[in-house]
Amino acid sequence: MQLTFLGTGDVRQVPVYGCDCPACSTARQDRRLRRKPCSALLELGELRILLDGGLTDLAERFAPGDLNAILLTHYHVDHVQGLFHLRWGLNDSIPVYGPDDRNGCADLLKHPGILDFRPPLTAFVPFQLDELKITPLPLQHSKPTFGYLFEHDGQHLAYLTDTVGLPEKTECFLQNFDNLEVVIDCSQPPRPEPPRNHNDLNLVIEIHTRLHSRRTWLTHIGHEMDAWLIDNGLPTGLYVAQDGQTLV
Amino acid sequence: MQLTFLGTGDVRQVPVYGCDCPACSTARQDRRLRRKPCSALLELGELRILLDGGLTDLAERFAPGDLNAILLTHYHVDHVQGLFHLRWGLNDSIPVYGPDDRNGCADLLKHPGILDFRPPLTAFVPFQLDELKITPLPLQHSKPTFGYLFEHDGQHLAYLTDTVGLPEKTECFLQNFDNLEVVIDCSQPPRPEPPRNHNDLNLVIEIHTRLHSRRTWLTHIGHEMDAWLIDNGLPTGLYVAQDGQTLV
Ligand SMILES: [Mn+2]
Ligand SMILES: [Mn+2]
Ligand SMILES: [Mn+2]
Ligand SMILES: [Mn+2]
Ligand SMILES: [Zn+2]
Ligand SMILES: [Zn+2]
Repeated sequence: MQLTFLGTGDVRQVPVYGCDCPACSTARQDRRLRRKPCSALLELGELRILLDGGLTDLAERFAPGDLNAILLTHYHVDHVQGLFHLRWGLNDSIPVYGPDDRNGCADLLKHPGILDFRPPLTAFVPFQLDELKITPLPLQHSKPTFGYLFEHDGQHLAYLTDTVGLPEKTECFLQNFDNLEVVIDCSQPPRPEPPRNHNDLNLVIEIHTRLHSRRTWLTHIGHEMDAWLIDNGLPTGLYVAQDGQTLV
Repeated sequence: MQLTFLGTGDVRQVPVYGCDCPACSTARQDRRLRRKPCSALLELGELRILLDGGLTDLAERFAPGDLNAILLTHYHVDHVQGLFHLRWGLNDSIPVYGPDDRNGCADLLKHPGILDFRPPLTAFVPFQLDELKITPLPLQHSKPTFGYLFEHDGQHLAYLTDTVGLPEKTECFLQNFDNLEVVIDCSQPPRPEPPRNHNDLNLVIEIHTRLHSRRTWLTHIGHEMDAWLIDNGLPTGLYVAQDGQTLV
């Protein structure tokens, strides 16, 4: 089981349009530090699953047939905008799984093209793609949102974005797993109050501790978090994801 | 008054994802033949107006302050998708004009960020940006849609997409102008029946004739139209627009 971060940015991306803060200025000069819309590729043998479709160049990144499935966390634009183009392709259809959100995004569900939207997933009811076991986990966000636990051969990887904190049931469920690898929304640096709908670093540290995670990877990162990271380090066990980085 | 075609493709763009037709194959090899989402830049002296926001790299194309206004034909995704990112910039706000469509697209109107959505325009009621006179013209499409007549110093340019045919009032209005330069939706090659919501070439030829246009530029072009153009020519006065091309 291998996860590659395709995008690790929040809705504004890094650099933010017109922002000259230290993080945005550096990212404008060094493309490797840029953060595209939050998304990832999960691979297990021949199986390739796209986690969220917010990248706008999906047609250039993935040849027809490359993707076995698309798994959506939720229908906010930054997580589905790349699908508006992909849908009008001529290929075999691509199965798309996600939470129950009949509104979807704009006319995506009404005109799905080659996207084969499967019946909405049910919280805590696992399903299988090839050898991979996937459990949808409710998150706390402004739209119906699922994180996912991926299990294979003793490996446990939880992909948890977008969210502010974790619902109690999701947290209890994840506490059953040892050696958990966590990828989680950390949009903001430490705040007196966490931002609406997204974690700040304080919340992420609490979650890391309560889940006894082996490693916690920060994603959905905003430019203020990146600016904070220029002057500050992270506690042991926490890591900042970068676009293009692969976890094995 | 100078118009630059930024994108001349239909909703599927050229090449279509996974299509190996002659037009798509050629465009995949030669980037100059690709067609991005239909949009244009209108310039008059210092004034720079973006016509539609479907390009997904607007933040890279236009530095903060570069655009004086955005003029929308309608709120279909291929005409506004690039605005979802631009809106979260830090710059001065950008005035956005368009038709009356309270639904807009996804949460664009609800969370406009730096986009300053002005009150909806009214059909046939002209307004002025600097020296440029702009008249909104109703089109025939599946969402409320305006074409626009741009006037300056004896120059008359009509930008008419997306549309199938023209409403009678719009046609009568445009017949008042001599030396009219027309840019128009020609999504499809000649068809026994024009496609829903978009022109085929037969309709475009009829409109060109009835408006006595000096020149008619085809835009919002689909891959089947491009494939047809490999083997066929256009009547006098009709021209195929290309991405990046400038009309002076
Ligand atoms: Mn998001
Ligand atoms: Mn979200
Ligand atoms: Mn269109
Ligand atoms: Mn349209
Ligand atoms: Zn910044
Ligand atoms: Zn084609």
